[in-house]
Amino acid sequence: MKKLRLPFGVQDYMPQECYNINRTQEQLASVFVKHGFRRVSMPAIEFYDVYDDILSRAAVNKTFKMTDSDGSLLMLRFDPTLQICRMAATKLSAERADKVYYIENSYEYISDPSTARSREFLQAGVELLGSSDVAGDIEAVAMAVECLSATGLQDFLVEIGQVEYFNGIAGEAGLNDADANALRAFLNRKDMLGAEMFLREKKVRDTFAAQFLLLPTLFGDAEVLARARAGVANERSLRALDNLQQILSALKAMGWENRVTVDLGLLRGEYYTGTVLKGISGNLGMPLLDGGRYDALCASFGHAMPAVGFSVGIKRLLMALENEDKLVRDPAADYAYIADGKDVAFEYAYVNRLRADGQTVEKRFDATESELFAYCKARGIAKALVIEGGAARAATEEKTCNS
Amino acid sequence: MKKLRLPFGVQDYMPQECYNINRTQEQLASVFVKHGFRRVSMPAIEFYDVYDDILSRAAVNKTFKMTDSDGSLLMLRFDPTLQICRMAATKLSAERADKVYYIENSYEYISDPSTARSREFLQAGVELLGSSDVAGDIEAVAMAVECLSATGLQDFLVEIGQVEYFNGIAGEAGLNDADANALRAFLNRKDMLGAEMFLREKKVRDTFAAQFLLLPTLFGDAEVLARARAGVANERSLRALDNLQQILSALKAMGWENRVTVDLGLLRGEYYTGTVLKGISGNLGMPLLDGGRYDALCASFGHAMPAVGFSVGIKRLLMALENEDKLVRDPAADYAYIADGKDVAFEYAYVNRLRADGQTVEKRFDATESELFAYCKARGIAKALVIEGGAARAATEEKTCNS
Repeated sequence: MKKLRLPFGVQDYMPQECYNINRTQEQLASVFVKHGFRRVSMPAIEFYDVYDDILSRAAVNKTFKMTDSDGSLLMLRFDPTLQICRMAATKLSAERADKVYYIENSYEYISDPSTARSREFLQAGVELLGSSDVAGDIEAVAMAVECLSATGLQDFLVEIGQVEYFNGIAGEAGLNDADANALRAFLNRKDMLGAEMFLREKKVRDTFAAQFLLLPTLFGDAEVLARARAGVANERSLRALDNLQQILSALKAMGWENRVTVDLGLLRGEYYTGTVLKGISGNLGMPLLDGGRYDALCASFGHAMPAVGFSVGIKRLLMALENEDKLVRDPAADYAYIADGKDVAFEYAYVNRLRADGQTVEKRFDATESELFAYCKARGIAKALVIEGGAARAATEEKTCNS
Repeated sequence: MKKLRLPFGVQDYMPQECYNINRTQEQLASVFVKHGFRRVSMPAIEFYDVYDDILSRAAVNKTFKMTDSDGSLLMLRFDPTLQICRMAATKLSAERADKVYYIENSYEYISDPSTARSREFLQAGVELLGSSDVAGDIEAVAMAVECLSATGLQDFLVEIGQVEYFNGIAGEAGLNDADANALRAFLNRKDMLGAEMFLREKKVRDTFAAQFLLLPTLFGDAEVLARARAGVANERSLRALDNLQQILSALKAMGWENRVTVDLGLLRGEYYTGTVLKGISGNLGMPLLDGGRYDALCASFGHAMPAVGFSVGIKRLLMALENEDKLVRDPAADYAYIADGKDVAFEYAYVNRLRADGQTVEKRFDATESELFAYCKARGIAKALVIEGGAARAATEEKTCNS
């Protein structure tokens, strides 16, 4: 017998899960649309060489690759933000589309099944193109909060950080890019011993070493910004703190102060250049939402343009909603019926009138009255009909017993 | 400069196209849901060996393939119906899900760019599992008509055929499967010279040869069935004609007789075993909709079960709608505004009240009043606002001229 397995890291979605996925997508999209964002869609298959020099080697190794008929290397979408930058460089401005959203599956080539990570994951995200200042950051953070709130999730926070705070100290301390990236990686995974040894090895001055090592403790409410300011003199770091302060004030003005928290230890590498954000919920262990400002990325595609955005991981969001018992059942049909086929004109006039009235009407095929009754009971369908010739009647349990 | 090309056969979708895609999807899904169908979703990546022996070599050669980390061969989804059969064999019955729909991209590995065919195509489709008789065929054909009608398309027809009519004659004529398939292919592409030579080569009796060669002319309204019946004596062919007659009668009872036409020359190979259907529109040159009964396919996955279904090619449907000027513009926001940022509390209270009232409100970033005005004019946004400190006013053209 053939084995009907699926590759690890991908899955089927059954009706109830699909219903919740669609429902959540629509809730997110409605926030995007309310803010004037317009949907775009990109192919799942692209040329590898369009992206290979833009991301780090590690990220590029995580793409699924295929060979095209002419020998060129193709890859599956792994980051819609990169595709939107490509579009920003080629066609979006002609459509005056500088606020776009997407809902797409991305693919990550994970080679180790034991990580239990998804290799196909659905994301809904927004990109705000062309906005260079804090007003764009505020829009992104506010929309992130609104998105999670729109799904009915109760227990969530959007953490905001600022990679320029770290960059400012790194610059002052004289670290080159490679060293700064290595240090960022230690701090980002809270490997304090590794960070300390690295700082010692690189002979970083004690003042700066202390500032770096303080980073993972700089999270919480607005008072963190005051602590972060102490002892830091470089312009970049101070501007970064001003930026976060403005975001916090704006979110407070919107009544969202309980939904936003600062985390200066949020030191995402990749392509972020300023504000970064991350949505978390309870003890989920993985971010629901990820994003930030990436002012240099569009330039990699030959069209310099500041930008900020975020994406929501729909499946993770569903897990968070499930933890709060917020998933819903996919609605059963209003009616289910069987018909003896002796008067199709009557049958279709009858059921199509119900459907035209907005009712969902499901026909059961090759089913007896007792099977219809059992199905309706199992699915929670209130109205079971039997169409015999030119007449419809309710299916009855008595009838079921007698038949 | 890096070339930002896309591989042939795939494309980006800009906001207006995306809007129409979503709108069409929702119209189709609403027909599916009205009939009690429930959405499922399958991964885009599967093991090649689950499907390789089920389809013909030609079809399998048209899949995009990749190698997984353990050396196993993966392929991209190329036919959601096959995936649903796999699910029917493994998990759908536990959920009592025998009416399912999907909206998925499929991928066809075409190696010749000059065909100008899409290698990524979005389809919305339904599968009705477990129904063995004509009632299921009627449900499929009726839903096909309702789907196309729901999109507002005026010029369309659903053609219905019956592969058993051909099979019956082939059986009577004593053709083996390989010969029957070869002949089917000649007839399906209306290669009458090829078909004639093949029939002569195989020494098929004149009576049967004449019946085969008549097939491509057997299309039109119900009187075709009478012509097809003349001279045909085998049971299978006659049952096939009865089946089509019942479908036509039911569709007539529903008031759809002008939307359905018979085509006995519709001789789809693949996995179809009975009624086949095809949606066409004007001079589009490609079917919008494809499907039929496939009673033997689920058994290939180890779980015998009759089934019938169809899928709609969303992009082709959009082309048909475009030919009738039925595509819509993606709606512009109700408001667009700029703000000086001096009173964020006022700004957000103001715009969030509008959004809570159901208005879409787009902020313009880094824009002057005249840029806001120009943007609103270009996008057709009626209300342009300027928020200065704690006050909002309409942007004016005069102001624009003076600024």
